[in-house]
Amino acid sequence: MSDKKVSIAKRAEDYSRWYLDVIREADLAEHSAVKGCMIIKPHGYALWENMQAVLDRRFKETGHQNAYFPLFVPKSFLSREASHVEGFAKECAVVTHHRLIDNPDGEGVVVDPKAKLEEEVVVRPTSETIMYDAYSRWVKSWRDLPILINQWANVVRWEMRTRLFLRTTEFLWQEGHTAHATHDEATEEALKMLDVYREFAEDWMAMPVITGSKPDHDKFPGALTTYCIEAMMQDRKALQAGTSHDLGQNFAEAFDVKFTDQDGQEKFVWQTSWGVSTRLIGGLIMAHSDDNGLVLPPKLAPIKVVIVPIGKDEDKTPVMEMVEKVQVALGERLIGIKVDDRENYGPGFKFTEWERKGVPLRIEIGPKDVEKGTVVMVRRDNGEKIFVSVDEVADTAEKILAEIQDGLLERAKQFRSENSRNIDSYEELKEFFAGDGGFAYSHWCGQAACDEKSKEETKASIRCVPFDQKKESGQCVVCGGSSEGRVIFAKAY
Amino acid sequence: MSDKKVSIAKRAEDYSRWYLDVIREADLAEHSAVKGCMIIKPHGYALWENMQAVLDRRFKETGHQNAYFPLFVPKSFLSREASHVEGFAKECAVVTHHRLIDNPDGEGVVVDPKAKLEEEVVVRPTSETIMYDAYSRWVKSWRDLPILINQWANVVRWEMRTRLFLRTTEFLWQEGHTAHATHDEATEEALKMLDVYREFAEDWMAMPVITGSKPDHDKFPGALTTYCIEAMMQDRKALQAGTSHDLGQNFAEAFDVKFTDQDGQEKFVWQTSWGVSTRLIGGLIMAHSDDNGLVLPPKLAPIKVVIVPIGKDEDKTPVMEMVEKVQVALGERLIGIKVDDRENYGPGFKFTEWERKGVPLRIEIGPKDVEKGTVVMVRRDNGEKIFVSVDEVADTAEKILAEIQDGLLERAKQFRSENSRNIDSYEELKEFFAGDGGFAYSHWCGQAACDEKSKEETKASIRCVPFDQKKESGQCVVCGGSSEGRVIFAKAY
Repeated sequence: MSDKKVSIAKRAEDYSRWYLDVIREADLAEHSAVKGCMIIKPHGYALWENMQAVLDRRFKETGHQNAYFPLFVPKSFLSREASHVEGFAKECAVVTHHRLIDNPDGEGVVVDPKAKLEEEVVVRPTSETIMYDAYSRWVKSWRDLPILINQWANVVRWEMRTRLFLRTTEFLWQEGHTAHATHDEATEEALKMLDVYREFAEDWMAMPVITGSKPDHDKFPGALTTYCIEAMMQDRKALQAGTSHDLGQNFAEAFDVKFTDQDGQEKFVWQTSWGVSTRLIGGLIMAHSDDNGLVLPPKLAPIKVVIVPIGKDEDKTPVMEMVEKVQVALGERLIGIKVDDRENYGPGFKFTEWERKGVPLRIEIGPKDVEKGTVVMVRRDNGEKIFVSVDEVADTAEKILAEIQDGLLERAKQFRSENSRNIDSYEELKEFFAGDGGFAYSHWCGQAACDEKSKEETKASIRCVPFDQKKESGQCVVCGGSSEGRVIFAKAY
Repeated sequence: MSDKKVSIAKRAEDYSRWYLDVIREADLAEHSAVKGCMIIKPHGYALWENMQAVLDRRFKETGHQNAYFPLFVPKSFLSREASHVEGFAKECAVVTHHRLIDNPDGEGVVVDPKAKLEEEVVVRPTSETIMYDAYSRWVKSWRDLPILINQWANVVRWEMRTRLFLRTTEFLWQEGHTAHATHDEATEEALKMLDVYREFAEDWMAMPVITGSKPDHDKFPGALTTYCIEAMMQDRKALQAGTSHDLGQNFAEAFDVKFTDQDGQEKFVWQTSWGVSTRLIGGLIMAHSDDNGLVLPPKLAPIKVVIVPIGKDEDKTPVMEMVEKVQVALGERLIGIKVDDRENYGPGFKFTEWERKGVPLRIEIGPKDVEKGTVVMVRRDNGEKIFVSVDEVADTAEKILAEIQDGLLERAKQFRSENSRNIDSYEELKEFFAGDGGFAYSHWCGQAACDEKSKEETKASIRCVPFDQKKESGQCVVCGGSSEGRVIFAKAY
């Protein structure tokens, strides 16, 4: 909240620093005193609230209900599904005691050795185990199915290397967890929710994504199949933006989630889980922002239009009258209109601030505008200035906001398309990723070893097996083995 | 989700069991595998979402922004404010390790001794310390003030004796945390938010509350003054439903939250914090429910009206046509309309289910109703049956829902009034609380010892010093010492 604006690194020069600079200057988040945990500041949290509202509505429209399950998972629950514990035990926060006492040897407090828990609990890294333990009590008959539950929650994965929004020890997310009578129904659910994510990414975040499945060796610990949406960032790296898992009956068997079917037989349920997190904010930043700071798609921007009055004391009254008129006209059509009438900052400072914060449209109103009955509109996405008659402010603002929304999606699609190509030799693959890189559509034989080799030697790995690729015989770009179709190799977050 | 309905204990016979029976039969929540932690089931969570929506809007209308701070608090942070650590160290979840490994001696996983944290972290019992550490970086000048931030979050207090919603190890809440340039402004804020709580309790929950301050010996650890709202439950016990704290400069000094004022002087900020939690759901249940299950105020009910079609196969089409007509008519005015057209349950089962779940108004439509062009409405609050012409359904439903909302508040006010009285002798106080009890308005000298004595001997303690009590000299009901006004003694949750 200091007045001084420091500069933002250029994307082309230092992409990593640029990313952190944008977050700081847009006042979205910061590191906290606890290693790897972030503070989501009001502007960043408002963005998350807007994302939540849209997703929550879509989850409810698709028949899901929200609920809330405990933060803590008994250690023994994690162990029940073998690959699940393998996946999460390495990096989890373990609660071992329930009391602190005055330090007998000096200042402060220490852990009370007498308050040791009988069984340690883990702060949930994800909630399959704690939820399915409950489902095993809730499900008796086919009439209790499907269970369609979503939870908005915080989860913890003790990451060693963190980056704001993209990878933090604690993050916020939603996790859907469903149980069904048949595998077909569960698959349909997993794909339906993947499509909800795709639609959200494209229609709201203006971030094009590729839908597909993860290679078997990279699926969620405990899943049969992991579906994903993958986006390209401006440094041409891939971001896994959301996943939806067909869990099969693995957890049902581990947690004994059984039902009596219409045929009188006792059967295990078929399950899915699916989630997106505050990582989406990282994706949003990297998909659209520029060297001047954050760029937001209007449909998700907490402030869609900022009105900045300009002028000295003697001009103030007529200017403010016009500001109010414009504010009212816009307010009838749009939410997220802000008037920046702060006294102790000049217009130049305000322009920079709102530009950095990604407000899609700025309206400037000064004494000359009052005389002419016009206002100046400035688009955040391309800097274009437009002079608009005051009577047309609302129509024009709506039109421009829609143009910005569409334009961001088109620009991102264009960028992805320019940086994607079919690659058929390992030499070319190495060259591609030694240069600018992007998405390489290449043949793959299905072996984890080839993915690992590529990752080691080119830093690019298989992001997904896209749904939209037709079957096509070819030779694995790494080992030359036979392949039935192309997958996407890319460097990734 | 079993079909079998078990009975609900009578309030008059076993109030504690009644409370748990209502929660179970209304499908609101249940205990989890982790001691003291609850699962909030979809119907309970929908209630919480409705409460959140109203409160969140009021917080924003009063100028606050949401943000999110880390779940973990470094152990040393807690120690910085002496009475704060004293208040929370005794019952907190302590994270000491960040990894589990395969058990070298057998099955499952164990804590990896090599993954011990350098400094243990505590799962937040409340967020003063972690938030004010950030405020100390954010606040430099008077222009950065006030800071008006709210957080919706989960918190953990390792309680030994828990009860669903009222006292659980993990609970959901909101915590507002503000910083101001002057004490007057901070006091105004603390009282303003207390009033937001009072208004919410009365206008939305239909639960009358008394506003006042806590005795000094019972205030929040680290506060100058704790303000509270206190409600009377149907067993005549008090429930502290929300608190708002004037924190003075205690935390500002502990966390060095300073600003340069307009006069050029460096000063500590003045702070407040205020919160309500899922405990409110416990209050809501106990304020209105009856021996048939949950009773909900219509303004917060997830389902306001349930429509139950009645009739055999040959009547189905005309009945369902009328059901749809009524649904559409209601849907134009109200949200939360549900049609219960489940095939495999009879009307009687459905009536009981929705009664237990607290749906304020039930509409029954059968073949005879279709003939007569009327529907049957049944009020949840008093069981009254009303025959209404189909054209007047929406008007009548709106009117009845408003009557129920007002009626619940009036009934609760009446009950409180009937169970409140001035008591001027310790003998009478003992007798009062040996009997039915309620709210005793009695004089108190200001000494903690008298409160403790009363609590030990009568089980009733001082709930609050009400704002609306006029100054009046008297003698402490416990020790006979001089007093300047009456306070409220009551047994409490």
